[in-house]
Amino acid sequence: MGRFIIIGERIHCISPVIREAMNTMNPEPILARAKEQLDAGATYIDVNIGPAESNGPELMTWAVKLLQENFNNVPLALDTANKAAIEAGIAVYNRDKGKPIVNSADAGDRLSYVDLAAANDAIVIALCSKGAVPGSLDEIMGFCQELLEHGMMLGMEPTDMWFDPLFLVAKGMQDKQQQILDAIKGFAEMGLNSTGGLSNVSNGMPKELRPIMDSAMLAMSMANGLTSAIVNPCDRRLIETMKSCDILKDNYMYADSYLDL
Amino acid sequence: MGRFIIIGERIHCISPVIREAMNTMNPEPILARAKEQLDAGATYIDVNIGPAESNGPELMTWAVKLLQENFNNVPLALDTANKAAIEAGIAVYNRDKGKPIVNSADAGDRLSYVDLAAANDAIVIALCSKGAVPGSLDEIMGFCQELLEHGMMLGMEPTDMWFDPLFLVAKGMQDKQQQILDAIKGFAEMGLNSTGGLSNVSNGMPKELRPIMDSAMLAMSMANGLTSAIVNPCDRRLIETMKSCDILKDNYMYADSYLDL
Repeated sequence: MGRFIIIGERIHCISPVIREAMNTMNPEPILARAKEQLDAGATYIDVNIGPAESNGPELMTWAVKLLQENFNNVPLALDTANKAAIEAGIAVYNRDKGKPIVNSADAGDRLSYVDLAAANDAIVIALCSKGAVPGSLDEIMGFCQELLEHGMMLGMEPTDMWFDPLFLVAKGMQDKQQQILDAIKGFAEMGLNSTGGLSNVSNGMPKELRPIMDSAMLAMSMANGLTSAIVNPCDRRLIETMKSCDILKDNYMYADSYLDL
Repeated sequence: MGRFIIIGERIHCISPVIREAMNTMNPEPILARAKEQLDAGATYIDVNIGPAESNGPELMTWAVKLLQENFNNVPLALDTANKAAIEAGIAVYNRDKGKPIVNSADAGDRLSYVDLAAANDAIVIALCSKGAVPGSLDEIMGFCQELLEHGMMLGMEPTDMWFDPLFLVAKGMQDKQQQILDAIKGFAEMGLNSTGGLSNVSNGMPKELRPIMDSAMLAMSMANGLTSAIVNPCDRRLIETMKSCDILKDNYMYADSYLDL
């Protein structure tokens, strides 16, 4: 197995600093946050420009070129509800370090993001939901099948679809957590890749508990076969856990310095 | 599911302080270390008196009475190669807080420890090995079956046998870790309880890495169904991980103060 893949989530227009930088096309805050995440262990950088209704293509093109030119063609996840912006970003994207990721399709209104990924030879994050929280494991696996068949009909490689079980907050949806872990197991047993916004699990918890809960969920998810997550790589405990689980899964060779490798 | 059970490992004659206290039957160091472990979240306290060839029954009787009288009949795991000492300990053991644990049987030379547990209505830790490191998952599950059948023929409840997959050091036996996790999964799928000396996984690693690696292994093991471990409950990261995994497994109800519960 390859090593676990971290998609760094911190270039997101919900952050005031990043929103302001995107509004004014100011490179510095975006480059600073990309560097932090890459130094901390991110493989991919997610670029969330929000709905970007007025200037989506222009903004995504700028962001893709900015990041790839400054970080040696770092691979990116293009994250927006504006499909034209994703297409514009892919048009200038350099694939030397990996295909672009389209973030994200689902089995409902956003099914056409699979088409977008297929037409552009991209990876797609495929959320196993039709908008609502899935009611059962069977429902998640059914959405997975729908998405997989749709992608394969369009000529996609199954491994270019990264299935997202929809991570849910533990506080209030504690009884859903095993279902999420079972879905990850189901994806792995089908030989599929998986990812998702793992830190949803600790939403609403006291700040000091979030790295603890996120790390526990990450290790349990990796035990069940999760291959990637969209998280904050600057969470040190989370990255320590990820690397330790990669060692236990024999994904890279142990050395006393393994946390630095 | 019930909550995960920690068997505190720190009353062990390999510790110079404890060995000296056992040699002189000095209560204070033993009581201090029991209190630390109970305060930190241990359910059971392991009492390892070593081979204790000369005074085993006398020493174990003293230790059992000492600990149970001072800690409200705390449940204990009686840990020695001296069978007469285990029997003597059980003879004075108060079962109000749980059956005694016999630590431990295996499928080889120590198979008769299952008989000892059966004859005394005790729990037994059943190491799925015949002395050597098991070569395959099938071998571990075969030893599990042998031990289980032996215990059931003697009238034991299957849930009173806690199966140990034999945790191994990752440094040097990295390729064995998945087999251990698969064995735990196998035990869980049979509805069996499980335990083991989990911190073996980080043997020989730099000291500061051990809680990190142990916590990762604990979470992965709990994802696969491990129900107990023989560990140091004073390892704060390990206990935080254990409680977080118990929340994710819905073994007790989330509260913002869950780490204190």
